[in-house]
Amino acid sequence: MGKGLTKREVDFSSWYNELVAKADLAEHSDVRGCMIIKPYGFAIWEKMKEELDRMFKETGHQNAYFPLFIPKSYLSKEADHVEGFAKECAVVTHYRLKNADDGSGVVVDPDAKLEEELIIRPTSETIIWNSYKNWIQSYRDLPILINQWANVVRWEMRTRLFLRTAEFLWQEGHTAHETKEEAIVETEKMLNVYADFAENFMAMPVLKGVKTENERFAGALETYCIESLMQDGKALQAGTSHFLGQNFAKAFDVTFADANGKQQHVWATSWGVSTRLMGALIMTHSDDYGLVLPPKLAPIHVVIVPIYKGVEQLDEISKVANGIKEELKKNGVLVKYDNDDKRKPGWKFSEYEMKGVPLRIAIGPKDLENNTVEIARRDTLEKETVDIGVVSEKVSHLLNVIQDTLYQKAKAFTTEHTSTADSIEEMNALLDNKAGFVLAHWDGTKETELKIKEKTKATIRCVQSDGKIEEGKCVFSGKKSMQRVVFARAY
Amino acid sequence: MGKGLTKREVDFSSWYNELVAKADLAEHSDVRGCMIIKPYGFAIWEKMKEELDRMFKETGHQNAYFPLFIPKSYLSKEADHVEGFAKECAVVTHYRLKNADDGSGVVVDPDAKLEEELIIRPTSETIIWNSYKNWIQSYRDLPILINQWANVVRWEMRTRLFLRTAEFLWQEGHTAHETKEEAIVETEKMLNVYADFAENFMAMPVLKGVKTENERFAGALETYCIESLMQDGKALQAGTSHFLGQNFAKAFDVTFADANGKQQHVWATSWGVSTRLMGALIMTHSDDYGLVLPPKLAPIHVVIVPIYKGVEQLDEISKVANGIKEELKKNGVLVKYDNDDKRKPGWKFSEYEMKGVPLRIAIGPKDLENNTVEIARRDTLEKETVDIGVVSEKVSHLLNVIQDTLYQKAKAFTTEHTSTADSIEEMNALLDNKAGFVLAHWDGTKETELKIKEKTKATIRCVQSDGKIEEGKCVFSGKKSMQRVVFARAY
Repeated sequence: MGKGLTKREVDFSSWYNELVAKADLAEHSDVRGCMIIKPYGFAIWEKMKEELDRMFKETGHQNAYFPLFIPKSYLSKEADHVEGFAKECAVVTHYRLKNADDGSGVVVDPDAKLEEELIIRPTSETIIWNSYKNWIQSYRDLPILINQWANVVRWEMRTRLFLRTAEFLWQEGHTAHETKEEAIVETEKMLNVYADFAENFMAMPVLKGVKTENERFAGALETYCIESLMQDGKALQAGTSHFLGQNFAKAFDVTFADANGKQQHVWATSWGVSTRLMGALIMTHSDDYGLVLPPKLAPIHVVIVPIYKGVEQLDEISKVANGIKEELKKNGVLVKYDNDDKRKPGWKFSEYEMKGVPLRIAIGPKDLENNTVEIARRDTLEKETVDIGVVSEKVSHLLNVIQDTLYQKAKAFTTEHTSTADSIEEMNALLDNKAGFVLAHWDGTKETELKIKEKTKATIRCVQSDGKIEEGKCVFSGKKSMQRVVFARAY
Repeated sequence: MGKGLTKREVDFSSWYNELVAKADLAEHSDVRGCMIIKPYGFAIWEKMKEELDRMFKETGHQNAYFPLFIPKSYLSKEADHVEGFAKECAVVTHYRLKNADDGSGVVVDPDAKLEEELIIRPTSETIIWNSYKNWIQSYRDLPILINQWANVVRWEMRTRLFLRTAEFLWQEGHTAHETKEEAIVETEKMLNVYADFAENFMAMPVLKGVKTENERFAGALETYCIESLMQDGKALQAGTSHFLGQNFAKAFDVTFADANGKQQHVWATSWGVSTRLMGALIMTHSDDYGLVLPPKLAPIHVVIVPIYKGVEQLDEISKVANGIKEELKKNGVLVKYDNDDKRKPGWKFSEYEMKGVPLRIAIGPKDLENNTVEIARRDTLEKETVDIGVVSEKVSHLLNVIQDTLYQKAKAFTTEHTSTADSIEEMNALLDNKAGFVLAHWDGTKETELKIKEKTKATIRCVQSDGKIEEGKCVFSGKKSMQRVVFARAY
């Protein structure tokens, strides 16, 4: 069974770690907190990137690239931002090594000390707004709609592959606008792009909403987010889109002449998703046999495995297999024919199950006789024998069905694990026994939010954009509240 | 004229700098030596990436991602490598900032000193081979054919946009093989991929050859390279492919059990091209009016500019323009219809000339009457009036013609600027008056190479792979030589 993954119900965290390793997605490097994304894992990330990049471009954005380094003083320019990001970061202090006097290797050259230390970007608002200052003079220069794909570093003490690493890959959009309204429209538009991507490509249902002040991005006036529920009932923040107001424009003195020639500060947004989405993808769909991938993000849609004795039989099967492969490729299906003679079919079956390939086609001598193949679905593990003539049609159909089934299954799980509670006790009982999202009334204050967190280990994931108005009493303070907010224990 | 670029013949270097700025390709950031790649420049780089990535995948390579940080001690493990790369690099010594006691901002927290300093990767052989050690046990694990797209940092004191910057973007391939022969085949294969890309996409002719020991990559047994000639007659190394022998396998103790169960060290290659190719592209084709782009790498193939008075005329022209746009898009042509009313046609003409858009279609009232448009080629600046019915056909034809013409023109330039010399004096006369590649005899020693460099400021760009055997005497020592090698002053 699945090369011996720990079962999810036994230890979800071990299951996750083992799966990431055995499906060959990523591993820890010798550098503390930094991961190596292995080719199969990276191929999935590339599919994500490709789709997101297409969506960004369709909504009018262009890519650019800004420096890895941020002068230390830039971080201090926006007061909230420095509080949020200056704490745990990698600091470059020198620019040269030299041979050690004792021949033991290389040492830092004390003569090569930088006048001002450089920070490895934890996020790029400061370096980018410092550039926008020179790019923006008039309203004609606006809007600026730029995205960057980059690596960033936040010095995390406790790391987990994909979910929390010191270095990670992400995209960060940074836009500049004439008006507050336009910036808010952009913030919401990009949240919708993320939600669209999560639901239609990752097959991962999400809640949309805004963060409380507590959980807001350092420097933002409003942080919009998508939140998703993992199979262990914990929530995961999958993407954020920030309305930054004029905070960075003021910090970096970025003004423009409006149509009447009046100088005004520019309005800003930023938005990002990261390799964390890989963790979300894994924890949403996978099972005790390994990874389960939605077809739209699978590097291989179909693997064909021959079942044979001897070279002659393999040759005959290969003729059929290659025919199927070519036909599928013509339809845009990503196919691998695994005729590697060093591995047994049984090994291959569990290998591709572990790697989450959505469909497996097995062809044996009986199939040759009957002009059939066996098709197995990764998500349900169901097998069926079909005529060779309809394989192509069947595969296209099943890929659509799997994409949809995964979404529906995750959606049902989320619905089932969304509860309401009217007291702290009720919240704790739900969180302990059932987990998931708990909708509860909250009085809107930071203090209460922290108290509830203390008592339940749950945070407010978001105030839902489409949450219904419902009068009630805060579970902690008993004060009046007009809307339940979404609590959960979270990654 | 071209928003006033300095002419190439007056000052090539100023021309280059002005062009990079005015075509909106890149700019210097406030961080010393680091550049900002602006959207239009990045769009060209993305086209390059896309093609190269496709070529790497077609030749069996997969992408992966390794950490930005390299522990200082790793650099010392391969003796030559540390000499070449440990000198000028960014060193991370701390992982936290804190608020300054005097409230003046943030300072490095002295308590957060790393036990071992981390180097920002100048190239990734060491961190990658440290990982391969765990990935390779048996010959069944070989070959490993991995590529990485990444940012790297080499602390350069004198920087020029794209050509030499402290941080730059590149790809680095790192492969592991069972045998020496297989590794050499890989090294040569990737050099050919680079040459193919340079000639068929960048329209940039290249010489292929190997570097002398002097110019070899630190840690390589052999460095293969492609060299190209810029319009000022200086050579530019456009890509390198290294046969690393077993150096890194030995340094990191990477062995495999061969088919007979015997432990052997693995054979390695690495190969890379960088954003430097952007500099090469610019300096190969562009003219005094701005950038000239080969169509295969142009983010926009065709710009349509309406010439009109008043909204009514614009509306009529827009109908025709949008029709042409849709038809061209169907053929895979990248079209922009610039109907921005804030800019005059003349401004647009020089703007798109500056940005190197291969074809411009202008449509005015006369054209409406006659059912024609005016098509202008960026490379030759030739204009012609054509019937609307044949625009699509004409555009496809011209894009092919331009791609080919640019290559032929650059090829003719290279041929014209390739000379032979039989003495140091002759070399200097050629290099001073005509520049370009100078083929001369060399006795094969490091010492002579350095002496010739001292006397001519020229380096040996390569020993050509397909250079003809020809007996002669070294221009410096008079000793016997069997092949002329390629000298040039270089970027």
